[in-house]
Amino acid sequence: MADKYCSVENAKFLLHDVHGFEDILKFKRYEDFDKENVDLLIDSVKDLADKEYFPYFEEMDAKPAAYKDGEIWAHPQVKTIFEKSGDMGLTGATFDYDHGGMQLPFMANIASGYILTAANNAAVMYTGLTAGAAHLITSFGTQELIDKYVPNMLNGKWGGTMCLTEPQAGSSLSDITTTAYPQADGTYKIEGQKIFISSGDHPYTENIVHLTLARIEGAPAGTKGISLFVVPKMRIQEDGSLVSNDVKAVGDFQKLGQKGNATVHLAFGENKDSQGWLVGEENRGLKHMFQMMNGARIDVGLNGAAIASAAYFASLQYAQERPQGRRLNNSGRKDVSEGQTFIINHPDVRRMLFLQKAVSEGALSLVMEAGRLHDISHQSTDAKEKEEAHLLLELLTPIVKTYPSEMGRTSVDNGLQILGGYGFCTDFPLQQYYRDIRISALYEGTTGIQSLDLLGRKVTMQNGRAMMLLMGKIQETMKAASTYDEFKPYIKTLGGKLEQTQEILQHLLQYAMKGEHEKFLADANIFMEFFSTIVIGWQWLKMATVAKEALVTGNLVQPSEFYESKIHTMKFFYKYEMPKTAAAMEILKNGDFLTILEMEKELIM
Amino acid sequence: MADKYCSVENAKFLLHDVHGFEDILKFKRYEDFDKENVDLLIDSVKDLADKEYFPYFEEMDAKPAAYKDGEIWAHPQVKTIFEKSGDMGLTGATFDYDHGGMQLPFMANIASGYILTAANNAAVMYTGLTAGAAHLITSFGTQELIDKYVPNMLNGKWGGTMCLTEPQAGSSLSDITTTAYPQADGTYKIEGQKIFISSGDHPYTENIVHLTLARIEGAPAGTKGISLFVVPKMRIQEDGSLVSNDVKAVGDFQKLGQKGNATVHLAFGENKDSQGWLVGEENRGLKHMFQMMNGARIDVGLNGAAIASAAYFASLQYAQERPQGRRLNNSGRKDVSEGQTFIINHPDVRRMLFLQKAVSEGALSLVMEAGRLHDISHQSTDAKEKEEAHLLLELLTPIVKTYPSEMGRTSVDNGLQILGGYGFCTDFPLQQYYRDIRISALYEGTTGIQSLDLLGRKVTMQNGRAMMLLMGKIQETMKAASTYDEFKPYIKTLGGKLEQTQEILQHLLQYAMKGEHEKFLADANIFMEFFSTIVIGWQWLKMATVAKEALVTGNLVQPSEFYESKIHTMKFFYKYEMPKTAAAMEILKNGDFLTILEMEKELIM
Repeated sequence: MADKYCSVENAKFLLHDVHGFEDILKFKRYEDFDKENVDLLIDSVKDLADKEYFPYFEEMDAKPAAYKDGEIWAHPQVKTIFEKSGDMGLTGATFDYDHGGMQLPFMANIASGYILTAANNAAVMYTGLTAGAAHLITSFGTQELIDKYVPNMLNGKWGGTMCLTEPQAGSSLSDITTTAYPQADGTYKIEGQKIFISSGDHPYTENIVHLTLARIEGAPAGTKGISLFVVPKMRIQEDGSLVSNDVKAVGDFQKLGQKGNATVHLAFGENKDSQGWLVGEENRGLKHMFQMMNGARIDVGLNGAAIASAAYFASLQYAQERPQGRRLNNSGRKDVSEGQTFIINHPDVRRMLFLQKAVSEGALSLVMEAGRLHDISHQSTDAKEKEEAHLLLELLTPIVKTYPSEMGRTSVDNGLQILGGYGFCTDFPLQQYYRDIRISALYEGTTGIQSLDLLGRKVTMQNGRAMMLLMGKIQETMKAASTYDEFKPYIKTLGGKLEQTQEILQHLLQYAMKGEHEKFLADANIFMEFFSTIVIGWQWLKMATVAKEALVTGNLVQPSEFYESKIHTMKFFYKYEMPKTAAAMEILKNGDFLTILEMEKELIM
Repeated sequence: MADKYCSVENAKFLLHDVHGFEDILKFKRYEDFDKENVDLLIDSVKDLADKEYFPYFEEMDAKPAAYKDGEIWAHPQVKTIFEKSGDMGLTGATFDYDHGGMQLPFMANIASGYILTAANNAAVMYTGLTAGAAHLITSFGTQELIDKYVPNMLNGKWGGTMCLTEPQAGSSLSDITTTAYPQADGTYKIEGQKIFISSGDHPYTENIVHLTLARIEGAPAGTKGISLFVVPKMRIQEDGSLVSNDVKAVGDFQKLGQKGNATVHLAFGENKDSQGWLVGEENRGLKHMFQMMNGARIDVGLNGAAIASAAYFASLQYAQERPQGRRLNNSGRKDVSEGQTFIINHPDVRRMLFLQKAVSEGALSLVMEAGRLHDISHQSTDAKEKEEAHLLLELLTPIVKTYPSEMGRTSVDNGLQILGGYGFCTDFPLQQYYRDIRISALYEGTTGIQSLDLLGRKVTMQNGRAMMLLMGKIQETMKAASTYDEFKPYIKTLGGKLEQTQEILQHLLQYAMKGEHEKFLADANIFMEFFSTIVIGWQWLKMATVAKEALVTGNLVQPSEFYESKIHTMKFFYKYEMPKTAAAMEILKNGDFLTILEMEKELIM
């Protein structure tokens, strides 16, 4: 394919130059990897994406997965995706050797996932969810469960899903009612309905392993009575053969985007013959699920960043090739005797392109930062470093999930605008990116839920220790940047924003201390907007400093424009994006709780 | 239909209470109308929309208009839409009695258009464009052309289009190449290609009259060599019968949204047999077209406001009916033994609903303001009043087009978010509104073009006289609001924003005076965002003041909550939306022209 949908150069720049992958490679678990073989792996992932993912991106949208005649149909390329991803070891890339994985560093897996997702975000969900499900089994399941299920999930023979949502409960998991009835042999009979199950059914793997939340009969109400089960589509018999396990696709959800991925309504135990196996401890299913949730939320952030990146390159190509109009001359007029210019030369088009670049690369850098913290928190042998990385990751995760989803969408929207009327047409991929990226702010916890998590839990945990750690990290970046006079104004801006963050938190925490929790959290979304912008500002200062260093030392892997472009985009972010925090600050300090106070007398009409 | 998609009460409130329709009814042209018969007309439009428009809203999307086997297929309901709209006189509502119209005030037509568009935005485009095309003929055409074409266009027998865009030119109309070859009989032979022609072809009217921009052979280059022609799909013979006029649909554009409307690629004169009739003066076609453009741009603003309104009512209904989760109690926890609450009781959902209400009603109020100015500028016998209304309308038009398109989209996006995962599913209409509204920022001049028009032309015209007039109008509203102490803080905010507007304009105009026009206009989009927010803040203060007056005097047409809701939403707008101007201000005062300066060495990559 001639079309560019991602930047391998940028992925490597982030990995090696910005986020110090070499530190991660020192961990024992990763002893078989070095920069060279990881780079080769990334190149081969790009090759796979070029051949098997990107060419089907539009087609899988045009022919959506759908429920027909009692079955789910999906694009046949899904079969190839499972097979190739399994063959190359990508589905289980980060898993233990013992489980059939290659112990790839999480950070490197983000680089790989970025490429595959940018190429075809609907396709990558099939193997991504399989890995997530397998990971739950290896983390909390018995050796027997691991042996029985995981190898086939990682090699591409079987698929996997996560079954959380139910029709009556939505995001409120405390209200789920799917029931697990204990059997004499230690297994359970599962009965209930699950909706919105991504990759929930298709004919392209022999089996699909559903990691399912359910309530053991008689368990306490609320989230404390939820357990986790393996409930396969096909039950494995003594002789290894597979028989139906009474898990049935009873419908699907036709969607705005990501149409290539089947979103399924599943019925468990309609004939009282759906067998499940407990994973981990009774009544701790939600806890187990949420230990995986950080990873899933990073993946959603990656989904947003990757789609935004693909959209950026599509818009950029159009802007470089489309002649239209003329630049203004000094008399404020256009000379029609001149030939047309390419639209990339119009300042407003440039503004939108830089916005796309600033958002998509800023978002990807933050996802990579999270990847690094994930690796450290799991692999470090230094207890303090490990714990700090864990805390930082806990704090950053809602932002990692939300910024690429929310601002990624704005970025794609600007990208569509660049194409004018063509952006609205199916001849160009922008309209698909605009539809596909819309899911990111919804699944694995909506933006509202992420914002409550950030302000209500993460900011305050351990008396604000994670926040203090993060402030320290940001100050380290400011210090490194201060080597270069050119960066002084941006360091000053960022420092000021950190002070404002303290100020606004003190202001908001007053309400929490008075027990006015609804007021404390009423504008959590606005705080998310405020703070995530600052966090991305931090990422841009970090990238620009590394780029400057490369230019000053002459230690260049890419042409010098690559690094100059980073510095320029950082400046763009500080000019056009950072000021939004001023607006958010004004809202957060406003003491009129207009969304709460009038509830007694309904004024929304 | 049980579903609410618009508010007739609000349309009447805006018409009568906020924007003083009674003044407009005094004009001679409107002597046959009074409040009562206009209200009855609005009610009958709602009835028509309920029966013939809204029930086909989703179906026309599911079965898009499309080019098949050399012809354009469109949903058969299009035939009914033409007929009913013609029969009720809605297509030509604002036209002269002489031309077959009913001389309906433009303002009242906006109320009618709001209802029809909210019900089915793709359907209303068929008759809307027909009216636009007919209006060009009545305004600039000969009596012969009027007599030949207009009656059948207004009665629903014939359709009409506007043919501007060409493949190589896009928004740059100076580059169009469609050619008109003069014939001995005074007519022209037309040859060329036009793209993106909305309602461009379909089998549901006997004829389609294309108002087409073309260059008379030998005409000067640029916009000064463009003329306007009537080029019908079917030529009228002496005996009144119709024969093909060599205008052929050669393809279509499949789109993200508004799929029910056929967007067509037309070829004129492939067999050198496409006859055209000059409308108005030679080489003044673009000028004629642009005299109509104000109306077209108000219609696009109305399209955005109406879709945003329909999306608001869909989200509101969902939020009122969907139980999920619990409110936080004073210990910051949720009590799972309580039943679930409806999601309308979650502060963040309320914030999004109020945002939808604030944007959609604010936008509609501005469109109505434009309608009033349109009526005055055309009907007033007081030369000063007439000229001032014209100037104000010129200034406001780019904002009327842009705010409902841009912020309407954000509003719909928030509406989709309220539905969570269901917002992404085709079972609910939010995803369609999200797609449909995306066109508003593109057609009839993109947001970029509107912003250049606002800052580059309208703000400065007649030495800023239009701006002075607008400031005066806003101050009148502030004065009226100052009767009520409750409004003091908002008046103060708005006054401050007017001062900032002056300040920022002085700052920007320096560049224009130095001849640095690219710098002057580089951030025109940001100025649009800044100033349009202020203008909507003005509309909200106006609405709130009228609502307060009604509450104080007890002169209530609606329940008191209707008026209290207006005041509360005004406060919401000032808390959550007005602060955005602070961010825009910061950007506009920043002297780093990052989008221009690096052009010599391309840093977008």
